[in-house]
Amino acid sequence: MKCDVLVVGAGLAGLTVAERIANDMKLKVIVVDKRDHIGGNVYDFYNNDGILIHKYGPHIFHTNDSEVYEYLSRFTEWRQFEHFVLSSVDGKLVPMPVTLDTVNAIYGTDMNEEEMKAFLEKEAVSFDEIKTSEQVALSKVGPLLYEKLFKNYTKKQWGIDASELDTSVISRIPVRFNHDTRYFADTYQGMPLYGYTKMCEKMVESKNIKLLLKTDYKEIASEIQHRALVYTGRTDEFFHNFYGKLPYRSLDFIFETHDMEKFQEAPCVNYPNDNEYTRITEFKWMTGQTCYKTATCKLIPGDDGQALYPFPTAEYQAQFANYRKLMAKEKNTYFVGRLAEYKYYNMDKVVKRGLEVFEDMKKDYEELSTYERVHSLSEEEL
Amino acid sequence: MKCDVLVVGAGLAGLTVAERIANDMKLKVIVVDKRDHIGGNVYDFYNNDGILIHKYGPHIFHTNDSEVYEYLSRFTEWRQFEHFVLSSVDGKLVPMPVTLDTVNAIYGTDMNEEEMKAFLEKEAVSFDEIKTSEQVALSKVGPLLYEKLFKNYTKKQWGIDASELDTSVISRIPVRFNHDTRYFADTYQGMPLYGYTKMCEKMVESKNIKLLLKTDYKEIASEIQHRALVYTGRTDEFFHNFYGKLPYRSLDFIFETHDMEKFQEAPCVNYPNDNEYTRITEFKWMTGQTCYKTATCKLIPGDDGQALYPFPTAEYQAQFANYRKLMAKEKNTYFVGRLAEYKYYNMDKVVKRGLEVFEDMKKDYEELSTYERVHSLSEEEL
Repeated sequence: MKCDVLVVGAGLAGLTVAERIANDMKLKVIVVDKRDHIGGNVYDFYNNDGILIHKYGPHIFHTNDSEVYEYLSRFTEWRQFEHFVLSSVDGKLVPMPVTLDTVNAIYGTDMNEEEMKAFLEKEAVSFDEIKTSEQVALSKVGPLLYEKLFKNYTKKQWGIDASELDTSVISRIPVRFNHDTRYFADTYQGMPLYGYTKMCEKMVESKNIKLLLKTDYKEIASEIQHRALVYTGRTDEFFHNFYGKLPYRSLDFIFETHDMEKFQEAPCVNYPNDNEYTRITEFKWMTGQTCYKTATCKLIPGDDGQALYPFPTAEYQAQFANYRKLMAKEKNTYFVGRLAEYKYYNMDKVVKRGLEVFEDMKKDYEELSTYERVHSLSEEEL
Repeated sequence: MKCDVLVVGAGLAGLTVAERIANDMKLKVIVVDKRDHIGGNVYDFYNNDGILIHKYGPHIFHTNDSEVYEYLSRFTEWRQFEHFVLSSVDGKLVPMPVTLDTVNAIYGTDMNEEEMKAFLEKEAVSFDEIKTSEQVALSKVGPLLYEKLFKNYTKKQWGIDASELDTSVISRIPVRFNHDTRYFADTYQGMPLYGYTKMCEKMVESKNIKLLLKTDYKEIASEIQHRALVYTGRTDEFFHNFYGKLPYRSLDFIFETHDMEKFQEAPCVNYPNDNEYTRITEFKWMTGQTCYKTATCKLIPGDDGQALYPFPTAEYQAQFANYRKLMAKEKNTYFVGRLAEYKYYNMDKVVKRGLEVFEDMKKDYEELSTYERVHSLSEEEL
């Protein structure tokens, strides 16, 4: 088989590049994915109880990037939704991130903005140099809030104590001295009105795009002729683990349907100190679906399972840097996305990277002479 | 690319053969389909209002064939459902097929079984030889019931008067002298508990099956090496319309969501004499979904659009007989299903044909020598 561009991975990264190549450059694309569906980890579907759920855990779109927002808006309308999270602490549900309401609830106080500022200044621990995630938190909110809200959550999430994680993990703890309990502060926040899968289906609508599902790229790599390769899979696998396997943190998803209209008081409730799961998400809050039952998802972090979170430690980033060098040597190959770049991108950033890589590809293509453009494929065949 | 068996069409016929080849013979299969989904015309999905609907019109499973029922039961549980239909006649809704209740409602009588028999014997028109669908109906139920229930419905459905359609169209009008208002009398009746699409997903679960979607078979026919071809598409297209295009009757599907829990008094209401649509189906009756809104589908027959019903006339069957001869000459090619065989098969019969064709293929394969089995593919390559 032949195509102009072979895209490995039908997640947001792959679909963004595929869509642009097919619709802007009018070139032929084949998108390959191991799974039996498109959408990668944003895939949503109706479960056996007719409730729209996110197969790979809750996804809430938020961005400050108007280009990305406008790009995706070509493929979906949006449901206005501002995410909010409660954290279960000492039997109470307090808002996350830390706001005036959080502090007052935990300390049983009735402080105002000025009083909270003064209070946290007193609580905060100062360090000569901040090197760990623990220090980031302590320097912002002090020991008690750190213990109750962050310490155990982080340990559960990463399997490593925050004192051993570099600053990037809790790099930015927003602390709000007001009543803004929104989880994200981004300009654009919402959910694709009919779900992520329907948005993704629109992205691949072009007749120039073929989908090859349930297919491991390695099985067909040599059998599909292509001018360029867009690779969104695991980089270590691409290079046959030449520099060793890159570690990932994973999640187990425990889906449950409940015979009630509403299960909990927020789209997401964190359990920093109790249970083996970190949080429970209730999908109807996000999707706006109205029906008699409701579905939730518990997230249980672990090291086995699907590759979800690249480890944000200097050691593994150094390991990845070796792969970066190999990546740079691959001809006509573009690496893009969370797995390929070993980097925890949010959805908006994944799409952004897809758009950037497309621009690179377009430039590379335009730099080819007409002769090369016509003959690049047949030359490869020889 | 290479595979053992290339299956063209991801409808029930193709999926049945693909499943058997992959799981029983452990051979590699690629299933190609033009559409962006598997399931062919049984594909169901949740619409924008979260209601499970059948994209290509209502499908209700019923069979007397325990082999087919048990086969499909490997891939789905069943929701017990016995279909029933009301027909809108003179402003009343009367049961279809014709039962004691239908006759009493239309004639405003209160007959019992014996009286109905005597009555219909008097009504029925006798013919020396029954040649048309109209004559079938008249000989069974007489002119009045024919006019009210069948005449215009048949005209709408086929665009041809029943007096010009051969007997196969209304070949068997069940007339029941009792209160059995079930539409089907089959032993097994029901709906896949979680929908047809989920059942189809199970059918292709094997790692031996790859899916190539949004792909026209003609584009890749020469590019995918295979030992055998299973073709479930239009036969006329396969042979480049050598004997002309085979005509099909089609349907327009008008989907509507209603802001109410229940729209009508039956899963299906026929409109033989009013409106351009023949019937309205309400999906929740069949699927058992409980939610606040409901979705319906009006069926408007026409000649343009997707190929749905092969024309049951001698003329077109003769045209197809020419293609039959060409089909017989194709090496290592198996034609199966409604389109390929130009025959209106119900779902159970489609699956049955898939199982039969699989048995043929297996026999053909077992008749090959070991040498041929190993070398058949590489010989093709030479």
